[in-house]
Amino acid sequence: MAQFLKVKTTDEVLSILDGIHPLPPEPVSLALACGRRFASDITAAEPVPHFARATMDGYAVRARDTFGASESLPSLLERSGEVVMGEAARLPVAPGKAVEIPTGGMLPDGADAVVMVEYTSVLDNTTIEITRPVAPGENVLKPGEDIALGETLFRKGAVLRPQDIGVLAALGIVEVEVFSVPRVALISSGDEIVPVETRHLAPGKVRDINNFSLAAQIKSAGARIGVQEMVSDRLEDLVSVCQEALKDHDVIVLSGGSSVGVRDYTTQVLAGLPESELLVHGVAIRPGKPTILGRTGKTLFWGLPGQPVSALIICQAFVLPSLRKLQGMIETEPVYARALRATLNRQLPSVHGRTEYVPVALSRGSGGAMEASPIFGKSGAISILARADGYVVIAEHVEGLDRGAEVSVFLF
Amino acid sequence: MAQFLKVKTTDEVLSILDGIHPLPPEPVSLALACGRRFASDITAAEPVPHFARATMDGYAVRARDTFGASESLPSLLERSGEVVMGEAARLPVAPGKAVEIPTGGMLPDGADAVVMVEYTSVLDNTTIEITRPVAPGENVLKPGEDIALGETLFRKGAVLRPQDIGVLAALGIVEVEVFSVPRVALISSGDEIVPVETRHLAPGKVRDINNFSLAAQIKSAGARIGVQEMVSDRLEDLVSVCQEALKDHDVIVLSGGSSVGVRDYTTQVLAGLPESELLVHGVAIRPGKPTILGRTGKTLFWGLPGQPVSALIICQAFVLPSLRKLQGMIETEPVYARALRATLNRQLPSVHGRTEYVPVALSRGSGGAMEASPIFGKSGAISILARADGYVVIAEHVEGLDRGAEVSVFLF
Repeated sequence: MAQFLKVKTTDEVLSILDGIHPLPPEPVSLALACGRRFASDITAAEPVPHFARATMDGYAVRARDTFGASESLPSLLERSGEVVMGEAARLPVAPGKAVEIPTGGMLPDGADAVVMVEYTSVLDNTTIEITRPVAPGENVLKPGEDIALGETLFRKGAVLRPQDIGVLAALGIVEVEVFSVPRVALISSGDEIVPVETRHLAPGKVRDINNFSLAAQIKSAGARIGVQEMVSDRLEDLVSVCQEALKDHDVIVLSGGSSVGVRDYTTQVLAGLPESELLVHGVAIRPGKPTILGRTGKTLFWGLPGQPVSALIICQAFVLPSLRKLQGMIETEPVYARALRATLNRQLPSVHGRTEYVPVALSRGSGGAMEASPIFGKSGAISILARADGYVVIAEHVEGLDRGAEVSVFLF
Repeated sequence: MAQFLKVKTTDEVLSILDGIHPLPPEPVSLALACGRRFASDITAAEPVPHFARATMDGYAVRARDTFGASESLPSLLERSGEVVMGEAARLPVAPGKAVEIPTGGMLPDGADAVVMVEYTSVLDNTTIEITRPVAPGENVLKPGEDIALGETLFRKGAVLRPQDIGVLAALGIVEVEVFSVPRVALISSGDEIVPVETRHLAPGKVRDINNFSLAAQIKSAGARIGVQEMVSDRLEDLVSVCQEALKDHDVIVLSGGSSVGVRDYTTQVLAGLPESELLVHGVAIRPGKPTILGRTGKTLFWGLPGQPVSALIICQAFVLPSLRKLQGMIETEPVYARALRATLNRQLPSVHGRTEYVPVALSRGSGGAMEASPIFGKSGAISILARADGYVVIAEHVEGLDRGAEVSVFLF
């Protein structure tokens, strides 16, 4: 095992993540599919609508019978029954006739347009006046005009949103093939950490923050938490917990304590697991340099820094994208899904050669534009994150950002 | 009951929603609290850290012993043991001495700074060289420097994010008082709707889209779905289902069919319920004008248009904010939580006197800036939403937006 860090750039890490294959697909019922990702393209097996529908309340007519109609010279048509909502239209519309129809009602044979009720008036039991002409197809949704038979509606890898669920419901798709959700084992380690329930903290001890904050992040990315444990910094203990976790987890996330040497422990833990491979041993990023990524068999193995702010940012920057890849994300997500633009309200120096993640708070500036204020704090302070709305990424080869620069803010 | 619509503006509706009181608070365990809202301000009952911690690996020293140190003229200090991670520092640091300390280790008495290991070198078993001076407090997090005792950390009504969970864990708060989650009864009605499972659609029938898309939206806002039913357009049936739902639901959402007259049905259903009050009967908005809001006892009653696109947009615009108010949202959420700025890539006409919600797709324009393309489609087409990334709101008194205008896009 390498004794010193050969750090990778963030781009190199992300390109390794790009190579992650999704978990196998599984069917889920439509009611539970929101937030999951399509395991295949979805095409329409039937047209929507499957019958010509009125899009307005009014009268189904032959459009040509209304040509030339105006306020001063209305067309007169014979009233000829009505279309009942939810039922097949029975009577065809003969020339010179009009059939009352509700929004969503089925257009009768013979009719090719609907005159809105606002442009009609009832003269008597048998006759209506039309004061505006309609063109053929007006106020009508033709079969397949909304969704054509065979049309590709959704692409493999896309996330199902509530409105997509609606489109699938329209097509009668009650079960959908989505990629499986990763099961994550979350292990925190360190001689200084004690359970969160600990009332009185002894000197030198801190509570186990990572097991809570990382679990919340991982669940927010749609993954499931399986094993969740706090383990001492003893190598045998860590190896044995990880070995057990390999049986039924897709990902192991081990957040190391901050003891001296624990970083090497993590690579030793990985080395102690079957079919292990070290992919990343340190990243040119701040915070979070001592990040480790490996594989053991089919299981992804993350070693995160024990420091809670670093762990959270590395989870956001790398672990969550890896979970999305396992869930079927195909390309990098559109940037607008998670970032917004703001103006930096002070200068932000950075060190050339590493990517920097800087927490920022957002507010409206005097002109109403969004302003990002960097939040500085001593290394190790966790209150920074509670005050931050998101973070700005300063790329590896940028030596800082000027006050007034437009930046992308990634929301937590 | 009023026979014609006295429509309210969207601002009037939102100010009615502002008056909604939150549901009672309840305790939840920290592990389940993500996404919920604080029912009271949270102050720190202990300082963080509770002992002086090193923020770097190195040597704990008296800062003055390093003053004047340089590469050419290093300070020489006597090595005097080490601080063990997670344990109380035992040996005080006397003048001229240095104690090895890991990041996160407890600063020994007498020491007031940490020299980073990079600026030291070991001469022999008893002596180290220091090549850079440190100031008092350098590389040390003092007690309470991260979080002060008694400091207000979170405000009532704020959403708990993963990093906030981490801060609470640091403080040993394992249970948190949050506002209860609303239980929503979701009822769809209309003579034309049939269950989603229906294989062969008879002419005039459509599947029950709203029960699926609205449920997904409501769950995404953190609320729970209780009763979920499809009911015929018969008044007695609707009243009896709603009456039953009143027993154990905080909100009833009734999406009406599109049958002629069903709008009046909804107000009649409300009128048929005990202690009912009609608050909104129509909104100057497109789509979604025939929206109804009422109360029956403590239960909120929404009547949404049956047309799926309208129902989804009204749910987004009004129902979800009402659910957030019930969950303790105090002020309007910061706009950046849900909107981003983009340039409109074509002209968008609008009608003065009503608020318009226009679905848009987002893409990167030639210069890399975000562009919003309005998605047009016939009234009633549902595929619009599957193609949209979000929507633009055109205010009531605006007569359209020009091509090139900068707009806020609210993501679905």
